[in-house]
Amino acid sequence: MYRTHTCGELRLTDAGKTVTLAGWVQRTRDLGGLTFVDLRDRYGITQLSFNVERDKALCDQANTLGREYVILATGTVKERESKNLQIPTGEIELIVTGLKVLNAAKTPPFTMEEETDGGDDLRMRYRYLDLRRANIRKNFELRHRMAIETRNYLSAHHFLEVETPVLIKSTPEGARDFVVPSRMNQGEFYALPQSPQTFKQLLMVAGFDRYFQVVKCFRDEDLRADRQPEFTQIDCEMAFVEQEDILRMFEGLAKHLFKAVLDKEFSSPFPRMTFDEAMRDYGCDKPDLRFGMRFNELNDLLQGKGFKVFDEAELVVGINAEGCAGWSRKQTDSLIDFVKRPQIGATGIVFLKWTTEGLKSTVDKFFTPEQLKAWAVRCGMKEGDLLCIMAGKADRTRKQLNELRLHLGDLCDLRDPWAFSPLWVVDFPLLEQDEESGRWHAMHHPFTAPKPEDAHKLESDPGGVKANAYDLVINGTEIGGGSIRIHDRAMQEAMFRVLGFTDEEARYKFGFLLDAFEYGAPPHGGAAFGFDRWVSLFGGRSDIREFIAFPKNNAGRDTMIDAPSRLDAAQLAELGIASVG
Amino acid sequence: MYRTHTCGELRLTDAGKTVTLAGWVQRTRDLGGLTFVDLRDRYGITQLSFNVERDKALCDQANTLGREYVILATGTVKERESKNLQIPTGEIELIVTGLKVLNAAKTPPFTMEEETDGGDDLRMRYRYLDLRRANIRKNFELRHRMAIETRNYLSAHHFLEVETPVLIKSTPEGARDFVVPSRMNQGEFYALPQSPQTFKQLLMVAGFDRYFQVVKCFRDEDLRADRQPEFTQIDCEMAFVEQEDILRMFEGLAKHLFKAVLDKEFSSPFPRMTFDEAMRDYGCDKPDLRFGMRFNELNDLLQGKGFKVFDEAELVVGINAEGCAGWSRKQTDSLIDFVKRPQIGATGIVFLKWTTEGLKSTVDKFFTPEQLKAWAVRCGMKEGDLLCIMAGKADRTRKQLNELRLHLGDLCDLRDPWAFSPLWVVDFPLLEQDEESGRWHAMHHPFTAPKPEDAHKLESDPGGVKANAYDLVINGTEIGGGSIRIHDRAMQEAMFRVLGFTDEEARYKFGFLLDAFEYGAPPHGGAAFGFDRWVSLFGGRSDIREFIAFPKNNAGRDTMIDAPSRLDAAQLAELGIASVG
Repeated sequence: MYRTHTCGELRLTDAGKTVTLAGWVQRTRDLGGLTFVDLRDRYGITQLSFNVERDKALCDQANTLGREYVILATGTVKERESKNLQIPTGEIELIVTGLKVLNAAKTPPFTMEEETDGGDDLRMRYRYLDLRRANIRKNFELRHRMAIETRNYLSAHHFLEVETPVLIKSTPEGARDFVVPSRMNQGEFYALPQSPQTFKQLLMVAGFDRYFQVVKCFRDEDLRADRQPEFTQIDCEMAFVEQEDILRMFEGLAKHLFKAVLDKEFSSPFPRMTFDEAMRDYGCDKPDLRFGMRFNELNDLLQGKGFKVFDEAELVVGINAEGCAGWSRKQTDSLIDFVKRPQIGATGIVFLKWTTEGLKSTVDKFFTPEQLKAWAVRCGMKEGDLLCIMAGKADRTRKQLNELRLHLGDLCDLRDPWAFSPLWVVDFPLLEQDEESGRWHAMHHPFTAPKPEDAHKLESDPGGVKANAYDLVINGTEIGGGSIRIHDRAMQEAMFRVLGFTDEEARYKFGFLLDAFEYGAPPHGGAAFGFDRWVSLFGGRSDIREFIAFPKNNAGRDTMIDAPSRLDAAQLAELGIASVG
Repeated sequence: MYRTHTCGELRLTDAGKTVTLAGWVQRTRDLGGLTFVDLRDRYGITQLSFNVERDKALCDQANTLGREYVILATGTVKERESKNLQIPTGEIELIVTGLKVLNAAKTPPFTMEEETDGGDDLRMRYRYLDLRRANIRKNFELRHRMAIETRNYLSAHHFLEVETPVLIKSTPEGARDFVVPSRMNQGEFYALPQSPQTFKQLLMVAGFDRYFQVVKCFRDEDLRADRQPEFTQIDCEMAFVEQEDILRMFEGLAKHLFKAVLDKEFSSPFPRMTFDEAMRDYGCDKPDLRFGMRFNELNDLLQGKGFKVFDEAELVVGINAEGCAGWSRKQTDSLIDFVKRPQIGATGIVFLKWTTEGLKSTVDKFFTPEQLKAWAVRCGMKEGDLLCIMAGKADRTRKQLNELRLHLGDLCDLRDPWAFSPLWVVDFPLLEQDEESGRWHAMHHPFTAPKPEDAHKLESDPGGVKANAYDLVINGTEIGGGSIRIHDRAMQEAMFRVLGFTDEEARYKFGFLLDAFEYGAPPHGGAAFGFDRWVSLFGGRSDIREFIAFPKNNAGRDTMIDAPSRLDAAQLAELGIASVG
């Protein structure tokens, strides 16, 4: 070992000890005769002290040290004269008697402070320097801790971690697969798993009873800030369970992580909301419950009074922005601009303000003061509040108002990243219909079972079938979800038919699973959680890339190693493939 | 929850309770009026009891249950009349009052007992049934336990588990990469990692200090029983360490696993042997030390006496097979046949037997009794022993005698899978020369540092350079290994030159690492352990496929899901690739 202690370890009680530290030069201060060096490692920062009277040569050497030099310093621990009580090692310093440069460093391309001057591209290209920033490194300490706690919780509950294969078969449903050409079976390809779904179900058929895996999954999709081509899932499955057992088990996991990692206690059960309620009351299936602004449907009050926009709408719906009545015209106009952006595509907002002067709406001429009063009562307004009303096609209007609600939540500072509001959304529809093609898609995936009471109408009324499927939503982010699965061959075949598979396709892609269901498949269900997202939520940030050591950019590139890259011709020839087009 | 208890849980103290069990029908015995069903789950087997007098309908139903039916049984726990003390639940049975078939089962294609009648192909095709066999499932309980213990040990020693990317850049050295065509960057490919080597080194440059990962790695090589295209590694790296620190840390891990998993205590340090000693004394770099038969070099005693085979040999070397003097001519002939097989390619063995009639060799006419006596003394023989001597080119002869030694170890039952003999092999050569091309290859990998005292001759005398590289060998299996790495740009560039890289190639493939070394790279080193192999060693088996849930066969196929497979034309077109040839 080069060092006797880390840079975060020495305290006043170590005074007098001779120690050796190793680390990086965070900064050097030459005070003329006296030089201080802040030596940094993962564990902390310790002040090194050099004195020209004590040892001129050593002091001169210290003055030549550049930022990020890797050095070894031996000396005696001494109580500091001017203490820094902000850091754990701030009461001591090291009176250096020996100094060795282990490796010099060029000037880094950006500052390695909490707020860096490095742009995204530069930081990613020199990710190994970016990762030296204490706030970024803490993200990985958090990630490590959450993984360990997850494994220990699940292991204590008799889950076995079983590694499922990465080289599997391509069965793209929805998302695209990454594929791997096979050298030994030319013309054939493996696929990287989008999830270990079928394997974990086979482990249930195998009697493993409780399975989990913290596992990399892959999707060849166009990327966004919260999507990476490879991502990590906490993947779980249990046999002989009903939905209630699964919710209880993973609510337990979530509570365990909240407590162990963030020291947050949730004494009561997480609230639950059906999918239909969530859509009706918040216009989305992952409502952020850190704040109110529940939807109020207003058709009965607002229609038939001659205001065409309302009269012609399928849905008129409003949310009450508490305390916003004093907003200026400029501020409310900017809300209208917000919903008119093409990503949202609304036509406008009708406002009702309740100021000291009473209720005032932007459509006063169509409504009486009593009518406005009735809106306010319906929406629970009080003086000082601002009602925002949107109208139009029901689905689209709900989506638009949801966007506005989240935006208002941001503007009103109601979305504190350190306040956590977990929620189970349950009773998802089994299928959703593609508007254009009219085809049915699995809302969750093709292995989700219909609710037993709806099973009979799977083929006759697919849209009316609900599933025992559930999502865990925290602060408006879908952390994970799952379902009770089909474990019966006939039911699975019916499901594939509804999804438009021919029997041949179903057999070709999933014959092994259909076969397995005939050899004693137990009832089972499970869940999967997006680990990157969960960690970033616990880290108080929304960009998952800050919690992935070496992420890809939005073009799917790792700019540090410069991947992907061209292969040489021999490598392609050996694989029996060629690049075309 | 379908069940109130598992099938491994009920004891005499539960007598009188009403419980519900769920599981698989292991077997049914219809004793005429009395029917017993063994109900199995992951946790055990519980006997269900049906009595025609008690409930004829129920008893009739029980008699219709087939093997591997999934059922639910409710009833009362009762003390058994004839107890089975072989199993933990053997003192009780369940007097069944309610029975429900959750899923019927076709007759399985092979028996699911410890010794199955299913051949390899059938077992792999129906792996989900094979995994129901208790002895196979135990392998995965072991694997889970070892992974948890490994993580907790390393975490307690301040290692952070950091996930490195799976989609990286192709830089094949030695083994072939699996590659992944990029849709977003057409004509370019990712590669799957053969190991996270460069990433873990960058994490050291980033100041992470101690890193580990239990991680899937990939090699597109032709397969054998102990090789899979995807395999799992315990991958570790530490900064500011010397070889001794690394050996101590991972000897600690090994001892922890021995204790926690197998309850085996190793109180003294693992023995160490240099690479040169291992080659000299055992003819291989991973000697199995569960038994002796150390090599005895005999050139000085055996040459110059007129026996041409010895006289013309570069090396004459023997091993003493204790207690084998009584072997028949047929037995010793079979040893000769063994070494003459093309895989070994030796020309023969000279034997010296020490029986009650004294010493007798197969080359008596060239040597005096005194000379034979001298051989025996040199090799530590006693009456009853058999000396086996081989001669020829030094390297080849050592390899051949190593094979014979292991074979003799098997024949003499000296390789008990439950006796464990760990060993560190140290001081590996940095490079090895390809006999045909004369090119130098990294013995470990191109990032291993030369020993400081040998560094000056890296380019002038590559073959004479040793490395601080080490392997952990247990029972003749290389469980893992590692080295102190290069952390200096100039040294790494010199290493690439010795390996025959042009500067351009080095920069293209590893420019990011060379750059990183200029921004404050600490001295570092690490190790990686083959997790599949380690688990199989602890499981007392040599076939790693028994410890991998869904392995590939020797043609790289998963016959259960039938992968790899052909892609449809649209998928290929979207990726911009075509199959050729």
